[in-house]
Amino acid sequence: MKNKINIAIVGLGQIGNHLFNEIKTKKKEIELLTGKKINIAAISAKNKNKKRKFKINKKIFYKNPLKIIDKNKIDILFECIGLSDGISKKVVEKSLKNYIHVITPNKALISKHGDYLSNIAERYKVNLEFEASVGGGIPILRTIKEGLSTNRITKVYGILNGTCNYILSEMDRTKDNFKNVLKKAQTLGYAEPGNPKLDINGYDTLAKVRILSSLAFKKKISKNELLMEGIENIEPKDFEIANQLNLKIKLLGVTEILNNKLFERVHPCLVKKNSYIGNVNGVMNAIILDGNPVGQSILQGEGAGPGPTSSALMSDLLSILRGNIKNPFGVSSKNRNSISTFDVNNYENSLYLRFEVKDKPGVLSEITKKLAQNKISIQRMIQIPYNKLKTASIVIITHKARHINSNKLLRGLEKNKKILKKPVLIRLF
Amino acid sequence: MKNKINIAIVGLGQIGNHLFNEIKTKKKEIELLTGKKINIAAISAKNKNKKRKFKINKKIFYKNPLKIIDKNKIDILFECIGLSDGISKKVVEKSLKNYIHVITPNKALISKHGDYLSNIAERYKVNLEFEASVGGGIPILRTIKEGLSTNRITKVYGILNGTCNYILSEMDRTKDNFKNVLKKAQTLGYAEPGNPKLDINGYDTLAKVRILSSLAFKKKISKNELLMEGIENIEPKDFEIANQLNLKIKLLGVTEILNNKLFERVHPCLVKKNSYIGNVNGVMNAIILDGNPVGQSILQGEGAGPGPTSSALMSDLLSILRGNIKNPFGVSSKNRNSISTFDVNNYENSLYLRFEVKDKPGVLSEITKKLAQNKISIQRMIQIPYNKLKTASIVIITHKARHINSNKLLRGLEKNKKILKKPVLIRLF
Repeated sequence: MKNKINIAIVGLGQIGNHLFNEIKTKKKEIELLTGKKINIAAISAKNKNKKRKFKINKKIFYKNPLKIIDKNKIDILFECIGLSDGISKKVVEKSLKNYIHVITPNKALISKHGDYLSNIAERYKVNLEFEASVGGGIPILRTIKEGLSTNRITKVYGILNGTCNYILSEMDRTKDNFKNVLKKAQTLGYAEPGNPKLDINGYDTLAKVRILSSLAFKKKISKNELLMEGIENIEPKDFEIANQLNLKIKLLGVTEILNNKLFERVHPCLVKKNSYIGNVNGVMNAIILDGNPVGQSILQGEGAGPGPTSSALMSDLLSILRGNIKNPFGVSSKNRNSISTFDVNNYENSLYLRFEVKDKPGVLSEITKKLAQNKISIQRMIQIPYNKLKTASIVIITHKARHINSNKLLRGLEKNKKILKKPVLIRLF
Repeated sequence: MKNKINIAIVGLGQIGNHLFNEIKTKKKEIELLTGKKINIAAISAKNKNKKRKFKINKKIFYKNPLKIIDKNKIDILFECIGLSDGISKKVVEKSLKNYIHVITPNKALISKHGDYLSNIAERYKVNLEFEASVGGGIPILRTIKEGLSTNRITKVYGILNGTCNYILSEMDRTKDNFKNVLKKAQTLGYAEPGNPKLDINGYDTLAKVRILSSLAFKKKISKNELLMEGIENIEPKDFEIANQLNLKIKLLGVTEILNNKLFERVHPCLVKKNSYIGNVNGVMNAIILDGNPVGQSILQGEGAGPGPTSSALMSDLLSILRGNIKNPFGVSSKNRNSISTFDVNNYENSLYLRFEVKDKPGVLSEITKKLAQNKISIQRMIQIPYNKLKTASIVIITHKARHINSNKLLRGLEKNKKILKKPVLIRLF
């Protein structure tokens, strides 16, 4: 690699912005650490005139990022737009094919097109790095690819979405409802102001789970549909009841090998109050990893925001500047096989079920009858009457139940007019 | 680097033994990950005939490890003897000077001679890797050097010695005394059977602190004397009192930059019961790191034992096989400056002091008088009488006190015959 390196940053939102400043202020340090002089040779954003923390040098500004590649000798390009397809994919693809290393925090892109793009990167012998796509500032991908490279990993799970963890922690702390806490999260910049849906419904966590799976188990990225449940139906009363049971509610992403099959899932979980994961609060992310011979490893850190994301992007930059040409997923594409999928219908665990019902005779017996029909046995039941409203909450903790059966149960109760709302289901971890 | 790599393992104790098996069983995987065929070409140990988990191939056995270097074409050598000087240093030095990459878990060697040896490694353009020297299976050195490489780190601290953490956790849990719990730790293999002193007195933690400092702050390894206090004087009653105060006792290693000076220390601390660090129990290690822009990062994992140590040694091996020639400390020797030392006498914090005294009039007034003379003010006091023995424990929690003053206080009370034992001092964190 030559000594003067030209860099392009495509996308100047919160992250691109922070990265731009970080690179500018750390030029000298980067030279000290790697011996390379770096130069921001091109930038691109939708809107040239948007208010930014720094003045745009119009000479290096491009409205169309693809033109950067045609008109400049770029060595390393940062893709910070964030789309799963479209211009994000085009820029990355074109860069790699022009022998330009690419660094991106874009989990949507990598979880969808990672296999395809890494193939190109390997063919053109350039790097495609995406440390910032999972766990923000936590160097989890590097840890799996390098620090634990010869371990046989059996399970990776954790809190992978800071927005959801903030909302759940805050609902628990303040007893306020989902809507209000979401608004607060948006005001504080912890949730997307426009459309926070992809965080809330588990989709963001799911993309990260797919990337973690492929690295941890050295397989292709899974394409199948996953068990994905969000946090939008959880209410303050769920926290109250969890509290009584000495439990906390967390949104977990989990990937593991069960009977030689890959089982990936995202859903709210009830975890023990005094467990490690039960005490990771606010916007923090935490990842727990079971490996042999290393045992259990835990990594925790700020999972989002421009600071931690920049930290990860810069670590990718330094890795490339040091001349480490590596397969994007550690193992080369041809050695990463597909893996068959564990049938979620066979997934068994204890469930927390909350039904909001009319306080009329017979409701409970109708629910328990359906439970019995679906071979789900009750471990514990709590009934909370709201006399004024003539309604009640019925909370049932089940023994281990198969997913196919709990699904049938809920479908079977859908048309029951004494049940007033979609029941809340949270899995015990 | 050529495609067939010869490896030597020097020292076949618990760790060398496990490593030998790990390399043998993972040959194929290593080839898949790196494209290199590896071959264990030489081994060395004090005793050829000791009972081992594997049969020694006598053709590759050397009693004198230095002869390995003369008689073989070794590419990578593992030093697993563990001395801070002597044959450990000689083998590493000779290997590097013969263009052999060296991997070692030897914290005593690196904390003492790391600067000298890394200089040689840089001159001969070979690697000197020591991930396993700190935090066992936790990839903390790689995380600092690579994952967080451009962060400005201000503080690193944590539980760095599994033996001490096991003993403290177990004393807390069982209310048993230090001697019995140490014996149990030895039976379970958590403490050295012969001489556990270097774990117990804080020396092992201190070596790790020195290595962490040099990496985190990109400086030479400090040579100065540090504040080092062990856990050997802590008694069950300290846990009882800590418990009443909602605190836990942990041995922490800490390194930070205070007023542009390096402040390294190892001593028992009282931490909040519900804090993260207060809940890291047993043989677990945990490291907390404050950096900018990444924020706070936490890494936790098994800190010792052959499994986690092998995991770290193998990660070093793969890094070398992938062809990453790197400065041992990230930054090159010529760019790592010395750093001046914070004067420990100016260190201020709250103290827990326990005095065992004769239950006679005037004792308390003598102690409090000395406290006042040394400008140490009392925040809280607990007196526990033992009527039958005519003795008492006096526990004092002080407001912030300077180290120089608390030292003077303890010296001033040394000759007081009403004080029956060396007072116990634990710092509040």
